[in-house]
Amino acid sequence: MSAVLEQFLQGLDAEIRAAGDWGEVAAYIPELARVDPAQFGIAIALPGGGMVAAGQSGQRFSIQSVSKVFSLACVLGRIGEQIWTRVGREPSGRRFDSILSLEDERGRPRNPFINAGALVTTDELLAGRVPKEALAEILGFLRAAAEDGDIHIDKAVAGSEAETGYRNVALANYLKSFGNLRNPPEITLGTYFHQCAIEMSCVQLARAGRVIAGLAGAPAMLSPVKARRISALMMMCGHYDGSGDFAFRVGLPGKSGVGGGILLVAPGRASVAIWSPGLNGYGNSQMGTYAAERLARETGWSVFG
Amino acid sequence: MSAVLEQFLQGLDAEIRAAGDWGEVAAYIPELARVDPAQFGIAIALPGGGMVAAGQSGQRFSIQSVSKVFSLACVLGRIGEQIWTRVGREPSGRRFDSILSLEDERGRPRNPFINAGALVTTDELLAGRVPKEALAEILGFLRAAAEDGDIHIDKAVAGSEAETGYRNVALANYLKSFGNLRNPPEITLGTYFHQCAIEMSCVQLARAGRVIAGLAGAPAMLSPVKARRISALMMMCGHYDGSGDFAFRVGLPGKSGVGGGILLVAPGRASVAIWSPGLNGYGNSQMGTYAAERLARETGWSVFG
Amino acid sequence: MSAVLEQFLQGLDAEIRAAGDWGEVAAYIPELARVDPAQFGIAIALPGGGMVAAGQSGQRFSIQSVSKVFSLACVLGRIGEQIWTRVGREPSGRRFDSILSLEDERGRPRNPFINAGALVTTDELLAGRVPKEALAEILGFLRAAAEDGDIHIDKAVAGSEAETGYRNVALANYLKSFGNLRNPPEITLGTYFHQCAIEMSCVQLARAGRVIAGLAGAPAMLSPVKARRISALMMMCGHYDGSGDFAFRVGLPGKSGVGGGILLVAPGRASVAIWSPGLNGYGNSQMGTYAAERLARETGWSVFG
Amino acid sequence: MSAVLEQFLQGLDAEIRAAGDWGEVAAYIPELARVDPAQFGIAIALPGGGMVAAGQSGQRFSIQSVSKVFSLACVLGRIGEQIWTRVGREPSGRRFDSILSLEDERGRPRNPFINAGALVTTDELLAGRVPKEALAEILGFLRAAAEDGDIHIDKAVAGSEAETGYRNVALANYLKSFGNLRNPPEITLGTYFHQCAIEMSCVQLARAGRVIAGLAGAPAMLSPVKARRISALMMMCGHYDGSGDFAFRVGLPGKSGVGGGILLVAPGRASVAIWSPGLNGYGNSQMGTYAAERLARETGWSVFG
Repeated sequence: MSAVLEQFLQGLDAEIRAAGDWGEVAAYIPELARVDPAQFGIAIALPGGGMVAAGQSGQRFSIQSVSKVFSLACVLGRIGEQIWTRVGREPSGRRFDSILSLEDERGRPRNPFINAGALVTTDELLAGRVPKEALAEILGFLRAAAEDGDIHIDKAVAGSEAETGYRNVALANYLKSFGNLRNPPEITLGTYFHQCAIEMSCVQLARAGRVIAGLAGAPAMLSPVKARRISALMMMCGHYDGSGDFAFRVGLPGKSGVGGGILLVAPGRASVAIWSPGLNGYGNSQMGTYAAERLARETGWSVFG
Repeated sequence: MSAVLEQFLQGLDAEIRAAGDWGEVAAYIPELARVDPAQFGIAIALPGGGMVAAGQSGQRFSIQSVSKVFSLACVLGRIGEQIWTRVGREPSGRRFDSILSLEDERGRPRNPFINAGALVTTDELLAGRVPKEALAEILGFLRAAAEDGDIHIDKAVAGSEAETGYRNVALANYLKSFGNLRNPPEITLGTYFHQCAIEMSCVQLARAGRVIAGLAGAPAMLSPVKARRISALMMMCGHYDGSGDFAFRVGLPGKSGVGGGILLVAPGRASVAIWSPGLNGYGNSQMGTYAAERLARETGWSVFG
Repeated sequence: MSAVLEQFLQGLDAEIRAAGDWGEVAAYIPELARVDPAQFGIAIALPGGGMVAAGQSGQRFSIQSVSKVFSLACVLGRIGEQIWTRVGREPSGRRFDSILSLEDERGRPRNPFINAGALVTTDELLAGRVPKEALAEILGFLRAAAEDGDIHIDKAVAGSEAETGYRNVALANYLKSFGNLRNPPEITLGTYFHQCAIEMSCVQLARAGRVIAGLAGAPAMLSPVKARRISALMMMCGHYDGSGDFAFRVGLPGKSGVGGGILLVAPGRASVAIWSPGLNGYGNSQMGTYAAERLARETGWSVFG
Repeated sequence: MSAVLEQFLQGLDAEIRAAGDWGEVAAYIPELARVDPAQFGIAIALPGGGMVAAGQSGQRFSIQSVSKVFSLACVLGRIGEQIWTRVGREPSGRRFDSILSLEDERGRPRNPFINAGALVTTDELLAGRVPKEALAEILGFLRAAAEDGDIHIDKAVAGSEAETGYRNVALANYLKSFGNLRNPPEITLGTYFHQCAIEMSCVQLARAGRVIAGLAGAPAMLSPVKARRISALMMMCGHYDGSGDFAFRVGLPGKSGVGGGILLVAPGRASVAIWSPGLNGYGNSQMGTYAAERLARETGWSVFG
């Protein structure tokens, strides 16, 4: 299978570069605004340890919101189902940084993959610990899952977001005003900005995703039921208010980040990382979404048959 | 497998009856309000024509919103992707009969499985035809899919809903005011109330669902891509504002109806119909949801691995 | 004073006709859509029976939502403060035909001057009576207040609105679904459409408004406290989501109608009717609003000093 | 008149103390949470310099949101109508600290008297100046208007609010994210918290209010048109989502603060300050509202006749 898949990825890479329809990079984080949108990489981890890749699959990028999948995995490992008292499991029907539904719902975010919900998850990871320890746990999880110790935080990106992330500051303080933040907002925010600034390549991210996809040969870090539940949340809420469209077109659980990364899982079959920094109107990678759709059609990996 | 599954279903049926935690029947449709909540049936259609069932699996019930899956299938067959200009594909994050998001979105319902979206779907089915013809198409689809001609509309239920369905009348007129209803509201509403009043047993519904689950041996009525997309919509929007929770717990595309029915599809593996008329707080069958969760855990049919 | 005022009104009329900036007539009621926007009339009733007028002050127009002031007056006379259990007294911050806030507030409209609230008021007027009787009460109130028996309903306008008033049909059915409509929706709607279709001239409307303005010599039909409270509601809610702007610019309680009429009251000093059928973006008369602002500045009648 | 009024105030004071229905003090600002709710004071400034008072009319209290009236007056004096590009003039229909409508309206607060709007006003006052200078301008305005130099900021209250004012921090950062805050959020917030912490007695506040009421003998600090417009805004938006009810019951422009103060203006007739720290469900002084209603009824000062 790998050979056919590799040929497909090479063709896809060439096609995307020829089309040149890259979208726009995120403007609100200065460090990310400087990235050239005309980039594309893809890597697919297969059961038993195989890896197929194309394009700039070794280039590191800011994983941003893709980190929310792994901070949730850490929290589920730490406190399990208790986290659901602080955050819901429903699609928000709103933008990733919406504050609106928080008011109606008295400070309990709709799910852990919108910004407000991820702040709560990170806040929970900080229980009884300093930011450095919480960040070490997330990094440790990623390194162990990817079996690659060379995964780090880009401090320039973290600092850049801290300087201009007014919307996230608003969300954190709003959560705090409802009593749904245990730490001082600036502590939780600082940790969150650093977590989002983790840098990984497609190859590294695809390897880390194996534990969620439950691939044969992946490190045994998540119980099947936890992996399944994280996948369900990725399907329902992984692409913000474009999640329904993504499920319709791609049919696989996925999580996007504003840095242009997408982690896709085909349970039992593959863990896929795609990166292209230009975004579409929902704030998801434009060419990444396209590649995901093409890949799902080509492989028949849709969970919907 | 059938024998093990049958034994499991018998045990589940006994357990549910012993527990007696039935929920409340829908109060707003007088005919449904009279139904005894203490009922339960389940039927599972398997590839190759097998059928396993337990409880009151032959008892007919009002399929209500489960019909939306099949009216959508008819519309997709008739006009295909054009339907998406009139209705979206995103979870609404709101109750099934919410009118709220319609105002913000200028009359384009969020998805075809909330009431407003189903009214648009039915309205489309009425294009150039009288209600009788549109209803004949839906019934014809169900009969062909179930390979059972004995599927009918309960006129008493249709009439009961027409008399008290003020919320739906409001939705239809609201859609009309935005120009997103082609027929006079009362025509679309009348057709919709009749479609919801279709009566089927679990066995019949499980057989009809085979075409969405894409089971081997099912009538060839839907292309794989259409079946996949309908399943994706069921996963994302099939349980209203409880869809995230259902995906998290059950991990299978499903569609509930206020009559207590749930259609579940395990793509390629099974089509499941469950019925228990008592509802939970989201308006979904309480014991039906419980049975779906138990079944998914027992069989490992979750699409999330 | 009358002579100075008359001269001012003549100049204002000439100025408005010269400017020719009329706005657009309401498009959603076919009969009103046919009206020429380039029309203007104004009439001012003064204490002691004086009347000053200019422009087409004798031309009859459809008073539409201005009727809500008088249906409220009838209801307050009939059941008094009890009406506030069914409708609020707060500005809605929304368009006149918004259905949105109704969902959040479980069917209790924010105030009696948005459409939903006026439907409740009219529904209350129908308690124990047929539509003809309720309409006779409103007409009777207007005739007595204006001391002019020649005030009638334009049946063509009422019929026109009944045919296309889908938004109002939606509102009425929505209210009914929350139990906040006592009559069948079509009965309340029919009465409401007829009430809105009352035809009056500026002179007639200014005379009718004297009872709210509490002018010396006006028929004794409303207690001072009732007149004061109706005026307060006109100030807070009389121009929908443009009420704040109207208070800021004009400083007088007023109520607009989609037919282009505005009733203004300067408590103890004057009752003013203005008519110009072209509307601004809020659905209020464009030149009527302009004339109200000019008049308030000229006379110093603002209630705010 | 003064003698009758004084007698009325004495009776009102006695009645309120006897009733003992004080409401609850604001809990979210620790310094205010310590205040005894069982306090009441009232002071009425009359044209020509008269002053009538009763109860604890000399006791200083935290004027909190009443300060918004005076910061708006300062801004109108400084940049005039330009402020309306940054903030609206419509009632919000929402709580004083709602963030909800900000999202729908892209960061332009509905009016200058909700917290978000007042932050914008204060931000404007800071243009080209340090916080100390902006605060000096507000204090200077109040001292000149009251003709009393002994008006100060309670630094303990300012500090207390700064420590726990998460909701306001959220609002400020949210405004900043939409580009509707010129200064760093912490600078605007710090200034705002200090402005809210100004301490005044009823006598001082009633004297300061004379310039808005346009009383004969008041310092000439505001043009009549500005005073009128501020009064209009107080009427429409001065009591948050209880403004309609206040207009209905009292009929006078007013502005409340969470410290229990209310400034009422009867244009040309009186400037009234009332204080009682226990609040009602809208966050307005419970006994203050009652006293305002009684006073308006007794004096006939309602602007609505």
